Amino acid sequence: MTHKAGPEIEKTMPVKSKRAEQDGAGEGFSAEVIEQIRRLHLFSSLSPSDVGQILEGAEIVLASRETDLFLQNDPADCYYILLSGQVALLVTDKAGRKSIIEVVKQGDTFGEEAIFDRGRFPFGARTLEKSRLIRVPADAFFQNISKDFRFVLLMMASISSHLRFLVKQVGELKLKTTEQRLASYILALAGDHEGNLKVRLPYDKKILASQLGMKPESLSRALAKLREQGVSTVDDGIYVESVADLRDYCSDSVLYE
Amino acid sequence: MTHKAGPEIEKTMPVKSKRAEQDGAGEGFSAEVIEQIRRLHLFSSLSPSDVGQILEGAEIVLASRETDLFLQNDPADCYYILLSGQVALLVTDKAGRKSIIEVVKQGDTFGEEAIFDRGRFPFGARTLEKSRLIRVPADAFFQNISKDFRFVLLMMASISSHLRFLVKQVGELKLKTTEQRLASYILALAGDHEGNLKVRLPYDKKILASQLGMKPESLSRALAKLREQGVSTVDDGIYVESVADLRDYCSDSVLYE
Repeated sequence: MTHKAGPEIEKTMPVKSKRAEQDGAGEGFSAEVIEQIRRLHLFSSLSPSDVGQILEGAEIVLASRETDLFLQNDPADCYYILLSGQVALLVTDKAGRKSIIEVVKQGDTFGEEAIFDRGRFPFGARTLEKSRLIRVPADAFFQNISKDFRFVLLMMASISSHLRFLVKQVGELKLKTTEQRLASYILALAGDHEGNLKVRLPYDKKILASQLGMKPESLSRALAKLREQGVSTVDDGIYVESVADLRDYCSDSVLYE
Repeated sequence: MTHKAGPEIEKTMPVKSKRAEQDGAGEGFSAEVIEQIRRLHLFSSLSPSDVGQILEGAEIVLASRETDLFLQNDPADCYYILLSGQVALLVTDKAGRKSIIEVVKQGDTFGEEAIFDRGRFPFGARTLEKSRLIRVPADAFFQNISKDFRFVLLMMASISSHLRFLVKQVGELKLKTTEQRLASYILALAGDHEGNLKVRLPYDKKILASQLGMKPESLSRALAKLREQGVSTVDDGIYVESVADLRDYCSDSVLYE
């Protein structure tokens, strides 16, 4: 895998914020960007000026599709917040086989754990589509985090929720069959919907197979087996005859959510 | 699964520390216990009085073998530090099947993430042998953590290192065969040893199988297949003809450590 981080990322330097212009406090994000950031769960309880302080030294990064933001084992000199687009976190073995650990959702942070841990990223991060992110350098992060204990708690909650996601994933990989893993995934997309449903799978089959820990062939087989449970493929999505029935089929292997 | 936490835990209330006796500051751990705690990685950079402060309100718990310290989904009202013995963290599905996520090592903390996250334990914790632990109530933890920013950073590092362990485990479950997972496990026990080696497996086969995400039959089959790689069972352990050769066999699937 070659590191394409350099040439394919367009960086936008932070725009002078209105506040910053008014009081001459230097550079910062524009009021518009700050408002967008405050809509993210992690920052929703903070005031605009708190957000400005906590993200001091950060910059906005625009990355095209299939850009490596960082590679597994790279020095952890920053963390990211995903504003829009899609990013996969993946591990690679020495034979070069990759496996997706998580597909990052908008508003999620990633990479911050590595800053506290051994200073190297335990996974790589690659965009699945054109993405807009905030990159927060580690130095600035440490300086800023000590300023506000509420933010420390938010950050710990964020890392802890990643950890819970991984615990669930380990449990599923150990206890569930491929069909059950696929069915759980479809049910997660269905939310609390009842009756029949068409869901669009959010990324291509190869990526989905990798995320579910199976080969693309196994994903096709699992899909075929789920036909008995009223699950069929249509166009770019999946049709579920009865969400309730599929939930019943899965209920044996449901883990704590 | 019945919750056996009540009757089977012998609790020892904190012993008055020498310092506490001298300045009349109330109850605390004895100087001996504090010294034992300071030998743990998490606390090694703190002074005895810092440790005393940070663990204010904590108590020592003695639990017999196969005690549930807490169940998956229980309210997260505390976290634990394992002083001696062995504890398994496990998830259970609705059919009652259990899978071990991690076997906690001496000196490790567990459960602290849940306090920051959604307030419920994402896994249960059960002793595998008679264990001695420190139980830190959530309330005391929040009060104490805000007193010392160094401890916040240590705690974040601890949670982050759990997270790295889980990332590695997800990667292994997704990319490795059962034989390779078993071989990696044996190699982890071997450390940087070269040549031939006899290692004692640290817990019984059923527990090991669960931790490696396989059925006990699959573990036996994996062991049989590894015979070609110079791995054989002897008495209560495993004999490896050449650690270097086994490392070669595994190297295709080695993930970032």
